[in-house]
Amino acid sequence: MAKPRRRRKKASDSVKATPPPPYVTRTAPVYDILSDEQAGIIEEAAEDILEKIGVEVRHGPSLKLLAEAGCKVEGELVKFERGFCRKLVMDNAPSEFVQHARDPQKSIRIGGDAMVLVPVYGPPFVAATDIDRRYGTLEDFNNFVRLAHMSPELHHTGGPICEPTDIAVPKRHLDMNYGHLALSDKCFMGAVTAKERAEDTMRMCEIVFGKKFVDENCVVTALINLNSPLVLDETMLDAAHVYAAAGQATVITPFMIAGASSPTTVAGLCSQSLAETLVGMAITQLVRPGAPVMFGFMMLGMSMRSGSPIRYDETWKSMLISGQLARRLGVPYRCGGSSTISKLPDAQSGWEGAMYVTYAMLSGVNFLIHATGTLEAGLVADFDKFLIDCDMLGAASRMMSGVDTSPDALAFDAIAEVGPAGNFLSCAHTMARYKTVFYQPSNADGDSFEQWAAAGGLDAAERATLRRHDMLAKYEAPKLDPKIDAALKAFMDERRAVLPDSFA
Amino acid sequence: MAKPRRRRKKASDSVKATPPPPYVTRTAPVYDILSDEQAGIIEEAAEDILEKIGVEVRHGPSLKLLAEAGCKVEGELVKFERGFCRKLVMDNAPSEFVQHARDPQKSIRIGGDAMVLVPVYGPPFVAATDIDRRYGTLEDFNNFVRLAHMSPELHHTGGPICEPTDIAVPKRHLDMNYGHLALSDKCFMGAVTAKERAEDTMRMCEIVFGKKFVDENCVVTALINLNSPLVLDETMLDAAHVYAAAGQATVITPFMIAGASSPTTVAGLCSQSLAETLVGMAITQLVRPGAPVMFGFMMLGMSMRSGSPIRYDETWKSMLISGQLARRLGVPYRCGGSSTISKLPDAQSGWEGAMYVTYAMLSGVNFLIHATGTLEAGLVADFDKFLIDCDMLGAASRMMSGVDTSPDALAFDAIAEVGPAGNFLSCAHTMARYKTVFYQPSNADGDSFEQWAAAGGLDAAERATLRRHDMLAKYEAPKLDPKIDAALKAFMDERRAVLPDSFA
Repeated sequence: MAKPRRRRKKASDSVKATPPPPYVTRTAPVYDILSDEQAGIIEEAAEDILEKIGVEVRHGPSLKLLAEAGCKVEGELVKFERGFCRKLVMDNAPSEFVQHARDPQKSIRIGGDAMVLVPVYGPPFVAATDIDRRYGTLEDFNNFVRLAHMSPELHHTGGPICEPTDIAVPKRHLDMNYGHLALSDKCFMGAVTAKERAEDTMRMCEIVFGKKFVDENCVVTALINLNSPLVLDETMLDAAHVYAAAGQATVITPFMIAGASSPTTVAGLCSQSLAETLVGMAITQLVRPGAPVMFGFMMLGMSMRSGSPIRYDETWKSMLISGQLARRLGVPYRCGGSSTISKLPDAQSGWEGAMYVTYAMLSGVNFLIHATGTLEAGLVADFDKFLIDCDMLGAASRMMSGVDTSPDALAFDAIAEVGPAGNFLSCAHTMARYKTVFYQPSNADGDSFEQWAAAGGLDAAERATLRRHDMLAKYEAPKLDPKIDAALKAFMDERRAVLPDSFA
Repeated sequence: MAKPRRRRKKASDSVKATPPPPYVTRTAPVYDILSDEQAGIIEEAAEDILEKIGVEVRHGPSLKLLAEAGCKVEGELVKFERGFCRKLVMDNAPSEFVQHARDPQKSIRIGGDAMVLVPVYGPPFVAATDIDRRYGTLEDFNNFVRLAHMSPELHHTGGPICEPTDIAVPKRHLDMNYGHLALSDKCFMGAVTAKERAEDTMRMCEIVFGKKFVDENCVVTALINLNSPLVLDETMLDAAHVYAAAGQATVITPFMIAGASSPTTVAGLCSQSLAETLVGMAITQLVRPGAPVMFGFMMLGMSMRSGSPIRYDETWKSMLISGQLARRLGVPYRCGGSSTISKLPDAQSGWEGAMYVTYAMLSGVNFLIHATGTLEAGLVADFDKFLIDCDMLGAASRMMSGVDTSPDALAFDAIAEVGPAGNFLSCAHTMARYKTVFYQPSNADGDSFEQWAAAGGLDAAERATLRRHDMLAKYEAPKLDPKIDAALKAFMDERRAVLPDSFA
């Protein structure tokens, strides 16, 4: 009697799946909406603002550095010689840099032709098909980190994906940092809401990465929002000083609300934003020449019906312009996002977010915050939209890969083989490619109406809720050295003992 | 006692509202995804196909014209000298032309920097929040024409927005032409499904516009789909001959299904599509040199899970490439659309349609069919999505207007006036612009959560259904000379008497 045949090992069994790329590499061209001459006009307008109007810097240590560098300081108002900030940035700030992740395979390049996708940042509320809109908790925050960790479309777990409002404000950053560092091994963003919170973030990074490594490498990014128009406030500059001094990356982002904190016209808004960004970036280079810094851009339009923030053509144009300005300055560029003013992950949220993300990508963005999950112009982190957006980003990211016009891609032999009235389904050229040539969405439904109806007739949001439960059930925390884990927890306990329990 | 004061007439009362522009004029740059060298490679590959493989032309009159022009005809297979079709098109086809509307104010320019937005074309099914998916009727069709007529975002009422399946197939075109001509005064598309239906369309145009005017001007566009791979069939060429001979516009569009009727690779697909389009366009120029003709592009990818059609990065890239090829050829370009494979106007339908439309616009499209209303990859005309898409097109179209960098737009004086920590809300620069500077959506909700919840908490589709009822209740048919109306009806009766009542 013949021995039972052993199952032959398939080639694929022994080959470990290739890890998803830690970021997108762009080979498609960017979309420059301005002529070079127009870009120059906006740059000169920014220099006019810096020279003639000036910027308020509400931060003693920064004023001291600026005065020492020769700027004209009158109280808190600082005026700049034409080209001063620009030269400081161009001479010192790196055009690209690496942010190291806990898993070195997930370290990212920021700048040049690299594009890093980062979740929504800062909403107080959460929602989903099975969660009525309510304030976010630490458990929500941790679940968002788990989903970001598991989503190959995201290259970063970001910062406060939602605010954990059940934790006291002065202690919140400890739990968020711990969530990012323990529940994922992707890159993350640090606390900026107070000087000591930025310092705590650095200590926790040192526990995980080692002090020497942190001294010599970038392991965290920090979002420094400015107080537009033309104000840089103390809290944010405190945080910027901590991170820049430690050689960590800052993202200098004016807060432009067209018609409130800036003019309504795109050219004016972009020149003011450039002026403010230049000052913020220049300060980081005075703190530590060569500290990595990003040119951040964020803006809202305003619904004249309700006063609510909106983002249509004026936002998309401004984002494209600012990307062009960042490239001319030679620094990495940050903009957003899949933003929408919609209250639900409905068709409106889909089209608003998709146009915003498409123009963000075409702007040459290097660091795309709010890539997933945002509703209500940033007030809500929606679990369903988070996963719907990941799916959208997968398709959108493939667009950045440009076009192959090699003889193999031209497929002349296949066209000749199939001939007039033939079918390409079974030809070798198709068979060799069909598994990878088309994007395979995770959430978008590609079934026939009959198949879809038989499967329950669910919409994108309902499918995302099912998928979230499935993902969270399968989640496995990446390995963390128990000694490091214990050290992180000991540090947090030590800090919690001295920090107040305030919720204001 | 003082006389009661008369209400003072406001300036705006006496000024008649400016009619919406009859098409979009692009001043923003197009997005060229290929280098010139790459575009040349694809053009040469198309010439390889035409020279070495050839195309099947299943139409006696076209074969005769091609043979007379010196092409190598073997049975139905035609091979072409390199550059033959290209030269014929470049020497004869207009780079742009005017399609005249019944209301001369709504006549459109097709080509160059003009962009015309056209509704969905051809779905058998209709749906809405208050209409369960079912076959379309003439009443549905007429309602779609009414909505297209009333929507300023659309510049054209298109062709079969939905199939009126309650009307016999051989008679359907009469009712559709009548709907377009009587219920709207915008431009429209004619019947192509049989030679005599194209001829009937021409007769109805002559009744409305006058025979002499029709002889000398373009008053109708006709969609000529090819039978890819590499086949031009009899029905479509019959229609193409009727329209081209009458000096009317044809849109030559291969039917590319990647992996079925074409290779899966973008470069191969675009070279095959170019080859087929060149033959179709060349035939129109043999029929009547100078007849207006558009370079059409349409493609689907294929879901490898279900075999269903999908449109992601491969479609968006191919659309950009074909736009570049059309510009190099110097003819107007047609592509689609707000297409989606979704079964509902949900978040998926929103993001899929928005990315498709955005890349279509960036491709330099001149004639954008399927701009509104399509679900299930073209199987369904959805009333809700029709209005949601109109709203999206309004914002998307404004993106095509480029950026103003004049001193006025730079707003230096406003920035100086407001100064650091000020507010632009009440400054003169904002007050002069706030009414028009931001896009005012019709369907997208920009209220706060509380306002939105108080108004019923409706999603985009539910709001669109309410809006549709409101619009249809307010619809007024544009004036039509009763004699012309009677003549149209008499012609239709005459034709109905001889056409069969078949539903196959």
